[in-house]
Amino acid sequence: MAGIRESALQYASNNKEKFLKLFKEILMIPSVSTDPVHRADINLAAEWMASQLERLGFEKVQIFPTEKHPIVYGEKLVDEDAPVVLIYGHYDVQPADPLNLWRTGAFDPVVRGEDIFARGASDMKGQAMVVLNAVESLINSGGLPVNVKWLLEGEEEIGSPNLKTFISGHKELLSCDFALNPDAGMIGKEYPTITSALRGLAYFELKVQGPAHDLHSGVYGGVVHNPANALAEIISGMHDSNGRITLPGFYDKVQELTSEEKKEIARLPIDENHFLKMTGAPALYGETGFSVNERTGARPTLDVNGLLSGFTEEGSKTVIPAWAMAKISMRLVPYQDPSEVHQQLIRYLEEHAPKDIRWELIAMAGSPASVSNLNNIGVRAMENALERVWGTRAFYRREGGSIPVVREMQSLLGIESIICGFGLPDDNIHAPNEKMNLPTWYRGIEAVIHFFINLKPE
Amino acid sequence: MAGIRESALQYASNNKEKFLKLFKEILMIPSVSTDPVHRADINLAAEWMASQLERLGFEKVQIFPTEKHPIVYGEKLVDEDAPVVLIYGHYDVQPADPLNLWRTGAFDPVVRGEDIFARGASDMKGQAMVVLNAVESLINSGGLPVNVKWLLEGEEEIGSPNLKTFISGHKELLSCDFALNPDAGMIGKEYPTITSALRGLAYFELKVQGPAHDLHSGVYGGVVHNPANALAEIISGMHDSNGRITLPGFYDKVQELTSEEKKEIARLPIDENHFLKMTGAPALYGETGFSVNERTGARPTLDVNGLLSGFTEEGSKTVIPAWAMAKISMRLVPYQDPSEVHQQLIRYLEEHAPKDIRWELIAMAGSPASVSNLNNIGVRAMENALERVWGTRAFYRREGGSIPVVREMQSLLGIESIICGFGLPDDNIHAPNEKMNLPTWYRGIEAVIHFFINLKPE
Repeated sequence: MAGIRESALQYASNNKEKFLKLFKEILMIPSVSTDPVHRADINLAAEWMASQLERLGFEKVQIFPTEKHPIVYGEKLVDEDAPVVLIYGHYDVQPADPLNLWRTGAFDPVVRGEDIFARGASDMKGQAMVVLNAVESLINSGGLPVNVKWLLEGEEEIGSPNLKTFISGHKELLSCDFALNPDAGMIGKEYPTITSALRGLAYFELKVQGPAHDLHSGVYGGVVHNPANALAEIISGMHDSNGRITLPGFYDKVQELTSEEKKEIARLPIDENHFLKMTGAPALYGETGFSVNERTGARPTLDVNGLLSGFTEEGSKTVIPAWAMAKISMRLVPYQDPSEVHQQLIRYLEEHAPKDIRWELIAMAGSPASVSNLNNIGVRAMENALERVWGTRAFYRREGGSIPVVREMQSLLGIESIICGFGLPDDNIHAPNEKMNLPTWYRGIEAVIHFFINLKPE
Repeated sequence: MAGIRESALQYASNNKEKFLKLFKEILMIPSVSTDPVHRADINLAAEWMASQLERLGFEKVQIFPTEKHPIVYGEKLVDEDAPVVLIYGHYDVQPADPLNLWRTGAFDPVVRGEDIFARGASDMKGQAMVVLNAVESLINSGGLPVNVKWLLEGEEEIGSPNLKTFISGHKELLSCDFALNPDAGMIGKEYPTITSALRGLAYFELKVQGPAHDLHSGVYGGVVHNPANALAEIISGMHDSNGRITLPGFYDKVQELTSEEKKEIARLPIDENHFLKMTGAPALYGETGFSVNERTGARPTLDVNGLLSGFTEEGSKTVIPAWAMAKISMRLVPYQDPSEVHQQLIRYLEEHAPKDIRWELIAMAGSPASVSNLNNIGVRAMENALERVWGTRAFYRREGGSIPVVREMQSLLGIESIICGFGLPDDNIHAPNEKMNLPTWYRGIEAVIHFFINLKPE
């Protein structure tokens, strides 16, 4: 295989401009999955992805409609004796707002210095393009060494509501030895990383209703419980003074870390200074008794993602708002169940919400956490590939984010995922000025070429 | 004076249609003082008011520019021996949002049943028109019995930032025996009301900043204090479990009600059921140990008027917001000073705001509370006027809202204000579907005719 390895790496090196041009094409499509306004853009992104697979000679390329956004599939089966790798990706992105904080347009990709800036550059159009470019390099240098299937969804940023149904209904089509899921990131530019566990997610919208309509705060201040104040009280009570979450039973299924796990986490080359620098916060915060890496990777958290009530324009309005709304989500760790967390939140509200207001809770998205079995040829192939490119043994990391599909592929297809990626901690994913570091992106393409070659049976 | 009284009342009765037409004209001007977009509308409303005074033969009619919105003045001095009444009014209105909750356009006045619906119908274009129509009725029926000056400002709904300077600079022009301030309301349709005290106001915008930019809640959840959560904690701590405000020193200058004051308040024909009906809240709330009328009229309160943070659109976004904002205002009672309350809030934040966030506080508006001296001929003339029309002795009420100008006229001009008005508790002031009850409005015109006649020396 040495010949293919070298010529594929050479191809990648020769085609950097072409790869960048393709990358810009997909970044220009504003495929925001949560916003109905971008429905046509979502379809355009799916078509663009399918056209790329067709261009590279993939077979059975198809855009499957779902109840919301379509799923793109394609396969290239080259060798019965070689493993089948299912590549997972998503072509949808987070909303770009607040738009005024972007230095350049969110869907107008611009290279500044080493980085390319655009929504989705890192999460995860850039990652999907790393794998696509590696695949192209191999195909044009003697052929893919293993069998490859693609599964590209358009609903990851809204909790993948239709993916499970699709996987259940297409188990044979998707059958494989393992999945490659490049929707994670690296600890730092010089630290190749494989993700060994992912937190789950439970996302809610809580609406507190007080008076039937907005009231004058002078005439009625003192007789009604202001729903914005009441919401603040409800949210405030969700953490105790040690930063622990107070929902009844929330920690019942949370496992304590073993001393071995704690040791593994302590080896990570990121510390409090890293988080201070990455966040720009004046000080760090979190659950008492756990390190920063434990808190982001191995402990559940609860965050308000949005607040809205009353008068928020410039100036002043002396109103008691009729209602107040919060988007609230929890990151979950293994064995916590999103629907149980939903029940715990309802119980918390029943016990602690003031009786002089009404509340309404909508569950928006939920997925359990996952832990990967690292003992498989895919992980070994990736570890070797990363070490070849970076000259450093990969770090195994518990990731704070959620990738529900990893868990679903475990349970529905019985397969493990190799979770990695080439995004960096300062990529501003889900935030203004999202970017991808291009030297790292090119190294990623090389690493994925090595990964596929490494998988070929001797 | 019996002749003028009767013919003026007859004139008012004959000109109901004309008065309503004029009322609609001023209601159609969206003179929202807090929004720079409506700058031209503010000027238009000032010009409309000035043109009305000119039409009725007022002299020295002038639109005085201020640093923000203009002040309209006009006078008619008819009798050296008669008292001089300064009529205060404001031609600006609150913002109309949320627009989608209006049954008909906020600036497209519509009569439905007994009511006319539009922003400003009750607060207070409708009140100014009551007095203007009474004045017209008198002028066209033999002449004004007393001397009248008009002072109409365009900044009441943003805390009258330039009124004090104007009054200070025009003490001679504004010299008078007392003011008529019709910017208050009635307890109920059959309960004529004179306001004996007004709460003050201290209005702030509090911004909490955490991370330097929005963060992914998966990657960073657990290491930074979410500013929306922190803001909720800060707000939640502003009340104790008895509904008392916890700012250090907040109650130091608040006087306990005397048993006589308590008895006077207890006579008011409004109770908890009234407030339940008016607000539509599922239950009432407030400071332990005080009745509803004490809580709205004689006790200070603190309300959140607006909340904004993070992602508030449809759908979900897993973001830790970089900042969170609350508009917070306090209604003050006599002897509380808005600038001292500002210092108390700063001290509260210094003591209680988490150290892992930054906060910034902007003081938006402030005015102290006022108590009127009821022992003057103006109050007696109004009490008699109201009883003539309603057949009921007026109720004296401590009003929850704020009218800073009352206090400023006390201190700068040395005069008392007769505070009354013909708005009803369900007029939805500062809220969608603001309205004025037209039969009450016409009765108001009659009452103000009686008021002026009553002032004429025998």
